[in-house]
Amino acid sequence: MRLTAMNTFGRNITFTSFGESHGVAVGGVLDGFPAGVSIDLAALKTSLDNRHPVAPFATQRHDTDQIHFLSGIEHTDDTHALTLGTPIAFYINNDDIRPTDYNAVPRPGHADMTYALRYGIPQQSGGGRASARETAARVVAGGICAQWLAQHEIRIYGFTSAIGDICIGKDYTEYDLSGVYHNAVRCPDTAVSEAMTRLLERLREEQDSIGGIVSCVVQGMPAGVGNPIFGRIPALLAHAMLTINAAKGFDYGSGFSDIAKRGSELNDAILPDWQSRPKQSPHTVTNHAGGCLGGITTGNDIVFRVAFKPTPSIGRGLRHDVCVVPRAVSVVEAMTALTLADALHAYSWQ
Amino acid sequence: MRLTAMNTFGRNITFTSFGESHGVAVGGVLDGFPAGVSIDLAALKTSLDNRHPVAPFATQRHDTDQIHFLSGIEHTDDTHALTLGTPIAFYINNDDIRPTDYNAVPRPGHADMTYALRYGIPQQSGGGRASARETAARVVAGGICAQWLAQHEIRIYGFTSAIGDICIGKDYTEYDLSGVYHNAVRCPDTAVSEAMTRLLERLREEQDSIGGIVSCVVQGMPAGVGNPIFGRIPALLAHAMLTINAAKGFDYGSGFSDIAKRGSELNDAILPDWQSRPKQSPHTVTNHAGGCLGGITTGNDIVFRVAFKPTPSIGRGLRHDVCVVPRAVSVVEAMTALTLADALHAYSWQ
Amino acid sequence: MRLTAMNTFGRNITFTSFGESHGVAVGGVLDGFPAGVSIDLAALKTSLDNRHPVAPFATQRHDTDQIHFLSGIEHTDDTHALTLGTPIAFYINNDDIRPTDYNAVPRPGHADMTYALRYGIPQQSGGGRASARETAARVVAGGICAQWLAQHEIRIYGFTSAIGDICIGKDYTEYDLSGVYHNAVRCPDTAVSEAMTRLLERLREEQDSIGGIVSCVVQGMPAGVGNPIFGRIPALLAHAMLTINAAKGFDYGSGFSDIAKRGSELNDAILPDWQSRPKQSPHTVTNHAGGCLGGITTGNDIVFRVAFKPTPSIGRGLRHDVCVVPRAVSVVEAMTALTLADALHAYSWQ
Amino acid sequence: MRLTAMNTFGRNITFTSFGESHGVAVGGVLDGFPAGVSIDLAALKTSLDNRHPVAPFATQRHDTDQIHFLSGIEHTDDTHALTLGTPIAFYINNDDIRPTDYNAVPRPGHADMTYALRYGIPQQSGGGRASARETAARVVAGGICAQWLAQHEIRIYGFTSAIGDICIGKDYTEYDLSGVYHNAVRCPDTAVSEAMTRLLERLREEQDSIGGIVSCVVQGMPAGVGNPIFGRIPALLAHAMLTINAAKGFDYGSGFSDIAKRGSELNDAILPDWQSRPKQSPHTVTNHAGGCLGGITTGNDIVFRVAFKPTPSIGRGLRHDVCVVPRAVSVVEAMTALTLADALHAYSWQ
Repeated sequence: MRLTAMNTFGRNITFTSFGESHGVAVGGVLDGFPAGVSIDLAALKTSLDNRHPVAPFATQRHDTDQIHFLSGIEHTDDTHALTLGTPIAFYINNDDIRPTDYNAVPRPGHADMTYALRYGIPQQSGGGRASARETAARVVAGGICAQWLAQHEIRIYGFTSAIGDICIGKDYTEYDLSGVYHNAVRCPDTAVSEAMTRLLERLREEQDSIGGIVSCVVQGMPAGVGNPIFGRIPALLAHAMLTINAAKGFDYGSGFSDIAKRGSELNDAILPDWQSRPKQSPHTVTNHAGGCLGGITTGNDIVFRVAFKPTPSIGRGLRHDVCVVPRAVSVVEAMTALTLADALHAYSWQ
Repeated sequence: MRLTAMNTFGRNITFTSFGESHGVAVGGVLDGFPAGVSIDLAALKTSLDNRHPVAPFATQRHDTDQIHFLSGIEHTDDTHALTLGTPIAFYINNDDIRPTDYNAVPRPGHADMTYALRYGIPQQSGGGRASARETAARVVAGGICAQWLAQHEIRIYGFTSAIGDICIGKDYTEYDLSGVYHNAVRCPDTAVSEAMTRLLERLREEQDSIGGIVSCVVQGMPAGVGNPIFGRIPALLAHAMLTINAAKGFDYGSGFSDIAKRGSELNDAILPDWQSRPKQSPHTVTNHAGGCLGGITTGNDIVFRVAFKPTPSIGRGLRHDVCVVPRAVSVVEAMTALTLADALHAYSWQ
Repeated sequence: MRLTAMNTFGRNITFTSFGESHGVAVGGVLDGFPAGVSIDLAALKTSLDNRHPVAPFATQRHDTDQIHFLSGIEHTDDTHALTLGTPIAFYINNDDIRPTDYNAVPRPGHADMTYALRYGIPQQSGGGRASARETAARVVAGGICAQWLAQHEIRIYGFTSAIGDICIGKDYTEYDLSGVYHNAVRCPDTAVSEAMTRLLERLREEQDSIGGIVSCVVQGMPAGVGNPIFGRIPALLAHAMLTINAAKGFDYGSGFSDIAKRGSELNDAILPDWQSRPKQSPHTVTNHAGGCLGGITTGNDIVFRVAFKPTPSIGRGLRHDVCVVPRAVSVVEAMTALTLADALHAYSWQ
Repeated sequence: MRLTAMNTFGRNITFTSFGESHGVAVGGVLDGFPAGVSIDLAALKTSLDNRHPVAPFATQRHDTDQIHFLSGIEHTDDTHALTLGTPIAFYINNDDIRPTDYNAVPRPGHADMTYALRYGIPQQSGGGRASARETAARVVAGGICAQWLAQHEIRIYGFTSAIGDICIGKDYTEYDLSGVYHNAVRCPDTAVSEAMTRLLERLREEQDSIGGIVSCVVQGMPAGVGNPIFGRIPALLAHAMLTINAAKGFDYGSGFSDIAKRGSELNDAILPDWQSRPKQSPHTVTNHAGGCLGGITTGNDIVFRVAFKPTPSIGRGLRHDVCVVPRAVSVVEAMTALTLADALHAYSWQ
């Protein structure tokens, strides 16, 4: 079986990812992005650092993660640039390459075996592509899209809502979602965050790992965006989320949790002035729909969850994450930004 | 905002869907399908009938659902045909059109409002595209793919695993999955099936509705199929499933249920002879992975679940389903067949 | 080698073609087309009839060529319809099927041999796909696009500029291009048209065939449309034209004819007020560029030519065209309309 | 009008191009390329140097053009590498950047005006994308594909067949096509080559420029490759060629030249043993078809021509080419390699 080119995401605004975990660099090309958008490069670097594994629960690998741009932008000052409408290519060097850490015996729960079956070459090489290191490139491209969306008042908030059986107890509307990167587990509830931290510390001692859930909320998305049938926004998001390492599930709105509820409980009443409301405002009273009906946005918050399995690397010392969830938060945000920027491509804002 | 063409699914074997629920017909074009494949047209009609709403829980709409082929096949006898390698186009007439059932007030939980916001035209017209009627075309195209896959010993079994809070109690391996279309709720557990039936009858009296879960198992999928990053099999399946009406979530393998388990519990041991095993056989001892690692198949069963919300149409007489889940089973199977046929496109079987 | 789905044209507004020449029907699905566009169905039928082989030089095959719409439009009166924004599916029955005309020996100059090598099945079946009959579907889809373009003052004029060594003698600007369907060879120069007719009559007696050139002019195309690199308008047109049966070449503007001219002769002076001119007006004084610079439109007429080989079917009685060129005119127009409608997809007209 | 991502070429093996002429670098990502292919990096550098402008007719710009690989290959020795099946990303620094050469007045015959209309930003920035510098990246990606094709005995020969009205006088089969890079104009006929050289020297003194034709021959292409309708090999090649700077036309086989010939002269007789011949051998006696019938290969040489206009930069000193044709030869070869590698993607060689 030959390769099929599958390293490009999107249709109108596209992102092509490249780079092996233990090669020279990871990077990507963001194509179709509008000209004349101002990018805050310092904020972009912060987004990338937010993805970074945070001790004590995470990989002790140290990459300085400088973003090198090869094309598509023009610096306006030291920390700002303007997009040119041309492909934005960038890379991040892999400073800390230790290929000898990986040996020829495929590790359970990893892609080692399947990559070897797929490509017929040793997994150290191509298999480096399955490493979470690749997601650094997505965070850069997604970060650029997120800045553009934010300039149109669309904001994306990912956060840790569960690690193992420790979950946040309140609805997301009761939290300040903008500060989750201030704590190591990226959870907006301080008390829950501490309990999660203790659990992760215990698991680290036990050299074991655990799964969890990243939730994501998108505010300010205009109503009427998306396409029917195969272009439904939740379908595009589901695809995007399941491309993240260790992701095992996606749901939105009432999702898996409310399958036992009645239609009479879940239908969201439509606001009487829906035809004249500003597009970037809720069009239904409640939001069990999670912001989409028939795959098209309602103007309410888009709300979804992504389930992650425990890190398969266990009992192998300090080099791997006890739980991927804290690190996955910024990747979920990045893939959301790529998906929605692509969907909004032809949208006229006025 | 202009339209973007999003009625085509897949990359190599593609399916283009057309038809409004209350127009002349629904149908589609299956392109890229191999030449010389024998299709059992009678079995295909049975697949389509299996999708059909079953009284007493479902819509009382009666379409005879004859499949009219316009191209791509050559009849070999009355009930069999050979594919030509050319696009397979077909349609199914909408015999029972009652557009006056739908009025201008958007129904909560439906796509009426969002379609109107999206297209700027009355939802009766284009909005007919959001009806479950469109999925009949998918079932035909998916059924053709499923017959091809079955000729290569790949079999797809969808079944109802939960309606409301009534779930099947055993692992799928303990059931005969081939007979689910013999009961109205498409559940392989006879006792559970009866309980589900009673629940649906009660809800019908109450003029309410309820959600549930369709599970799906794929047997015989060769190991080593799929592509990394954006071509992961579970990501493609997630996209496919979330394009189904009323679908709210997707997970595979350990999924949402096992996020609180440890890595030490979930890692599947690799069979020592994995390099020499037949591709169409399991390559790991257990299968918490759900048949895919790093997005590429392991040769074990692919196992996933799709969550559906309660039908939003309630309290409106007999014309709508109390629960979409029984009807969704064959749509889940069809979209699975389309996804996997596309993924197997360049696979060499010998 | 397996099939790859290649029966879809375009990216945003897409056309999927289906149907074998000697099967039930030919047809297609036009997806991504805007909602609310008024279509004159009688004019569309005229466009389709304009493609029709015209005696005495052409195939004596008689299809009534009624267009059956399956979806995507809503009739407003007997001869008009409104588009719904949903996929527009249609078919045209093949009334006059004589599969026995074709036998197992591959005909020189035809696709019989290559189709047999490609698909491994007898060419009568799949090979019917290589027949010019398939282009009827393109003319319908292109006709719909052309009506939309015309509503925005963009007009496409194809015409026969050469048959054998008989060419039109003047620049296209000296002819009335709107009346070419009034004569059998679709040539705007009456005297030349008569000479062409005599040549074709002589060749018909000799049971031989001949090639020629279709020229095409697009008026009213706004400046600034197209994309650099792989999205250049002339590259998209070249692809479109070379998909037409018997097409052997494409050039635009100065093309092959002026390769011996100097740069000093061919550079088109830019109008001093280019920045403030209406988009739908010329932006250069002369137009050796043929309406595109760097792949992007200048607002001047887009001018290109398509070369066609002699019909390979010779000495076989009356059943085939002496020259494909007159028939190809409407196919060239249709493929131009599809290409430009796709390119204009996200263009905001105001 | 927003951007659409159009910097990716191909479907299965894809090439994404990036970089502005006067930015940091040009480069690209080759995705879908098979794993385990040996690449001669020294030969690849020679291919890239062959594209290089050659004095005295060409731009005096000096870039050292070192190829920096970021991913997708693993060095096996100093000058060889093995592909990994992952995206191959590379860049070439722009060493000799002089943005001040370009000013705000759009140059006739260039993309300056159309880019400014398209993007609404000064053409120096994004407009750098229209420079021939971008083709360096294509030559690298195409060179990798060409090496893979050559390992399967498929060889691509581009050459200059006309500059102005000076043409080669014999059929290509009478020349040694493998040595064209030994002379500055890339013409296989020594005497003609000298005449072309003299013409270019004269034009250089006159500060004028001229057009010409690059011909291309592909040997060893298996019969039966390509797809009907929109996947015809000549249509894909036409698209590819018209994406090259200054290209104005494409034809293949009998092309524009033989439109006045009769069908009886041009039909190629089919070899009686066509069904049993080796795929990589001619299947017709003559080859007026240019190697393709119905868009699918015949096993004969693929033969086509590309017309180029005179360089629009004239009377501006030494900095631009008098004629793009010599430089375009390696770009034509590269785009041919990309197109055919993509078409052969799913071909099984045995």
